[in-house]
Amino acid sequence: MTTTGKQLFTTLEANGTLTVAIEDVTFPDPTGNQVLVRMEAAPINPSDLAILVGGADMENAEYSSGKYVAQMPEGANAASTARHDMKLPAGNEGAGIVVAAGDGEAAQALMGQRVSCVPGNAYSQYCIADAAMCLPLGDHTAEEGASAFVNPMTALGFVENAKADGQSAILHTVGASNLGQMLTRICQEDDIGLVNIVRKDDQVELLKKLGAAHVVNSSKDDFMAQLTEAVRQTGAFYGFDPVGGGKLVDTAFRAMERVAVEQMDDYSRYGSNQQKRMFIYGRLDTSPTLLTPSYGFGWTLSGWLLFPFLQSVGQEVMGRMRQRVRDNLTTTFASHYKAHVTLEEMLTKDAVMDYREMRTGEKYLVTPWG
Amino acid sequence: MTTTGKQLFTTLEANGTLTVAIEDVTFPDPTGNQVLVRMEAAPINPSDLAILVGGADMENAEYSSGKYVAQMPEGANAASTARHDMKLPAGNEGAGIVVAAGDGEAAQALMGQRVSCVPGNAYSQYCIADAAMCLPLGDHTAEEGASAFVNPMTALGFVENAKADGQSAILHTVGASNLGQMLTRICQEDDIGLVNIVRKDDQVELLKKLGAAHVVNSSKDDFMAQLTEAVRQTGAFYGFDPVGGGKLVDTAFRAMERVAVEQMDDYSRYGSNQQKRMFIYGRLDTSPTLLTPSYGFGWTLSGWLLFPFLQSVGQEVMGRMRQRVRDNLTTTFASHYKAHVTLEEMLTKDAVMDYREMRTGEKYLVTPWG
Repeated sequence: MTTTGKQLFTTLEANGTLTVAIEDVTFPDPTGNQVLVRMEAAPINPSDLAILVGGADMENAEYSSGKYVAQMPEGANAASTARHDMKLPAGNEGAGIVVAAGDGEAAQALMGQRVSCVPGNAYSQYCIADAAMCLPLGDHTAEEGASAFVNPMTALGFVENAKADGQSAILHTVGASNLGQMLTRICQEDDIGLVNIVRKDDQVELLKKLGAAHVVNSSKDDFMAQLTEAVRQTGAFYGFDPVGGGKLVDTAFRAMERVAVEQMDDYSRYGSNQQKRMFIYGRLDTSPTLLTPSYGFGWTLSGWLLFPFLQSVGQEVMGRMRQRVRDNLTTTFASHYKAHVTLEEMLTKDAVMDYREMRTGEKYLVTPWG
Repeated sequence: MTTTGKQLFTTLEANGTLTVAIEDVTFPDPTGNQVLVRMEAAPINPSDLAILVGGADMENAEYSSGKYVAQMPEGANAASTARHDMKLPAGNEGAGIVVAAGDGEAAQALMGQRVSCVPGNAYSQYCIADAAMCLPLGDHTAEEGASAFVNPMTALGFVENAKADGQSAILHTVGASNLGQMLTRICQEDDIGLVNIVRKDDQVELLKKLGAAHVVNSSKDDFMAQLTEAVRQTGAFYGFDPVGGGKLVDTAFRAMERVAVEQMDDYSRYGSNQQKRMFIYGRLDTSPTLLTPSYGFGWTLSGWLLFPFLQSVGQEVMGRMRQRVRDNLTTTFASHYKAHVTLEEMLTKDAVMDYREMRTGEKYLVTPWG
């Protein structure tokens, strides 16, 4: 069987030229526990944008049919030497129909079904995917299942991580994102305290409507006081941040320390012994993370990535998490999209300039067959 | 028995006025397992300077006999609200003669002996100390024993921490400090790889003479290449930094990531899965720590403090560490001092302007009886 179709590739040359283009490719036959998926829909997540756009100058890029060529600034280019001159696929996840399967039992069982999958080249008409990582979608549409992996498993991962570390509350710095909304619902279901930081009044409203108890608007003058009060009420000394750059993590640590110091009997020049823990799971802001000496030495900041986390928890926990996603795909784990684009439309200036902003609630969905 | 003597106190008022002054005080009689130590010598460590000087304007302070009054800049003052209007003692550690003891067995056993101790008010002619934290010095001088706790236990703590985390090599960002020299000797004795960062050629020489294998000079043009090579040779993905501010931690993470990426088969936009771990154990530079998005998400940065660490390892490990310090006080754990000052001399402009610089190898020793 020969399967051909269109697929997107991204190449960064050593001189900083970034080319993202659609090519006609021939897909291999699936073997063992692989399946071949005819892709119907794939979301553009922030984690995908890093290799699609990165820090490139998209305003002055050359756009042509099914292609753009942009220049990467020197700093961002120097930080990307490891990918220089490699032609990379893109698109972490998506959904489609299994049209061919390897001999393995798990693969054969998926034949003809609509599945969500995590192929790593989801911006494509076809993908080879690992059957073990496919989630059968039953009667759900491809749009409903396209984002069934990254955001749902990440949000569930935060809660798993917090519980494993003995925490009963979480702080999340981008509360109104698709992921933040999922986390809000999960924390209610699991009776975990949650402090949501948002930037706008309508995002406060959105989360309040979902039943969120603690939503703090960072654009308000009394933000720090409100954040401190929310930490005080929940005991959230443990949080997750997808922004990375700037002072958002620092602000969270400072609020946590204020609450911890209130609870101390004696002054200590070293700050409180209350352990404060933050995780950076994205880089929406690629400027440096700033940590001021304002909260002693009782703090830890880590990077957090979904796949290493899933490897660390093992198959059983992961299976339980995935079952929960499937059971609640259109409720707890529902995703929403601002626009649908074809592979070609995805590479137009109008689309790029819009989705690269990664505005809360304005996610794009790629439909590779139009 | 009434014991009176001179003791230093530091007070920061809410308006930012910092007063450090010597007062005549009456010391209580020791009870239980307390001892009263007639102090002979106490070092000025960076950890002591925070409450003695902090960010205050020492150039324009008012100096008088046994006293200085300085102004704290607004930012540093706002970060110190927890100590406002508290009169605090200072001086973590020192050495002296036990001149009175409580009824407890451990206290009585120390009567008449010279000990090193960790009273928290070591800039004083007398201190009440916990017998369990005293280290009998035998025939050692007070100068030899004055710094027997903070630096030795911290350096040993790094190695304990590294071993507990399965590491066989350590990176230290201030290799030529008193603590760095101890760490160099400990790592040789324990066969732990060590990457030392220093800033000057004579510091390279100093550490090479101690037998250090990997000393990298951060003032050289090829610093990053040399640092990367040292990480490559040692496998030091685990390090300690007393500077805190600026890009030193970032630089260490970048060197570690370069080595990790070399060892990867495939490119990953998320960086390597090699866990990179750094600890900030001081704030010689109080500007913000800067973390750039240059090493993926497989990293963790924590504050590190000696006392919480010692609490976490328990009495047995701590006893073993202290025995090792006592057995090697003038070799592995030897400290050196640039100058001796009385309590009064300690508060003169000449002295303050010099020791507040915390230059490598220029530590001061306070001798409260002159």
